[in-house]
Amino acid sequence: MEALDIFGEMRVGVDVDEHPRTRAERRDLQVQRILEAAKTCFVRSGFQGASMQQICAEAGMSPGALYRYFASKEAIIEAICEADRADDAKLFASILSNPNVVDGVVEGAMAHIRHVHETNASALFAEICAESMRNEAVALTCMKNMEQVLDVFRGYIGGGIERGEIDPPVDIETLLHTMMAIVHGMALNDLPSLGVSLDKLEILARASIEGMLRPTNKLRAG
Amino acid sequence: MEALDIFGEMRVGVDVDEHPRTRAERRDLQVQRILEAAKTCFVRSGFQGASMQQICAEAGMSPGALYRYFASKEAIIEAICEADRADDAKLFASILSNPNVVDGVVEGAMAHIRHVHETNASALFAEICAESMRNEAVALTCMKNMEQVLDVFRGYIGGGIERGEIDPPVDIETLLHTMMAIVHGMALNDLPSLGVSLDKLEILARASIEGMLRPTNKLRAG
Repeated sequence: MEALDIFGEMRVGVDVDEHPRTRAERRDLQVQRILEAAKTCFVRSGFQGASMQQICAEAGMSPGALYRYFASKEAIIEAICEADRADDAKLFASILSNPNVVDGVVEGAMAHIRHVHETNASALFAEICAESMRNEAVALTCMKNMEQVLDVFRGYIGGGIERGEIDPPVDIETLLHTMMAIVHGMALNDLPSLGVSLDKLEILARASIEGMLRPTNKLRAG
Repeated sequence: MEALDIFGEMRVGVDVDEHPRTRAERRDLQVQRILEAAKTCFVRSGFQGASMQQICAEAGMSPGALYRYFASKEAIIEAICEADRADDAKLFASILSNPNVVDGVVEGAMAHIRHVHETNASALFAEICAESMRNEAVALTCMKNMEQVLDVFRGYIGGGIERGEIDPPVDIETLLHTMMAIVHGMALNDLPSLGVSLDKLEILARASIEGMLRPTNKLRAG
């Protein structure tokens, strides 16, 4: 009876042609639908202003169905960030294959800026950032994402330093945190939406990153 | 009778030794008290989550007294940003006197980062940024502050370009918007609170800014 119940609710808003077959597929679709509804509500009303009831209404779902998947707004944010972490992991896989460490870091920065722009995510991004400053659970979730990014670039940039390809003027932890904050600012302000072209942005991102990484004559050709 | 009424309320939270003399001084004190209460509420509950009633309670003031000064939460944000704009104008006056344009821009960036850190303003800053993405009135207020900063640096950096002291690789509007976004990210993340020293941060800010401004051999000694 539970499956029927879920299915009955799903038909309200989801294309019935999709005919999800397995229980896991149906579950994924439901979760996806809740996350999209929650993003809309968080952007519209803020995390504090949005209620679980509003998220239900936006998703066209009963509270019972929603609470079956998520116990709280914090749990929804965790799932949104978890999906983002998976996206990032895919992005980084290609970056880590770039033998030129300056090119790789520029590519990583631009991929993030482009992703936030193309998915129109800066408002949600700003809301999660603001909420993380007052909400321990959301702060922990954000920290998990940050730690993954730091880990990836710690290894990648650290390798470039060890091989003598770059010679940054400060220790690697200061460098990593500062570069993350810089790219955060560039993505959050969604400069392409203000008319700044991605090509010009890349020229400045490269100029800034080269300044901080200080490539030596050992850097491999890009 | 109105003055007495205000005075009676003021005694709840403000040092009675201050004995403000004029009506204007009393008004300023009341406004200050409301702004501080509102900042606390916005950081604690978010702009959407905080109500005018909560701000009254935090300020120890009746709704009638509060509405005498501010008609809405948006009007309070406007006053907070207006105060910030006045602070910035003072900061910039000293920056504009630096004959070395790279030093001046680094000084401006660091002054902002230091100011956000010392006044513990990053959470409020993040909340206003998030709200500006959904709220037309708050967006306009933020834009006013941004325009002032852009104007000041447009003149200052533009002068350096004209005199051939710097040779940035992109047009000045792209440069200004990108540098603002970068400094926004550095301030918002309040790196000193994560253990990054201001001295090291300045080294990286200078490396990044030099990379983007590209000083020529005409740059005056700092």
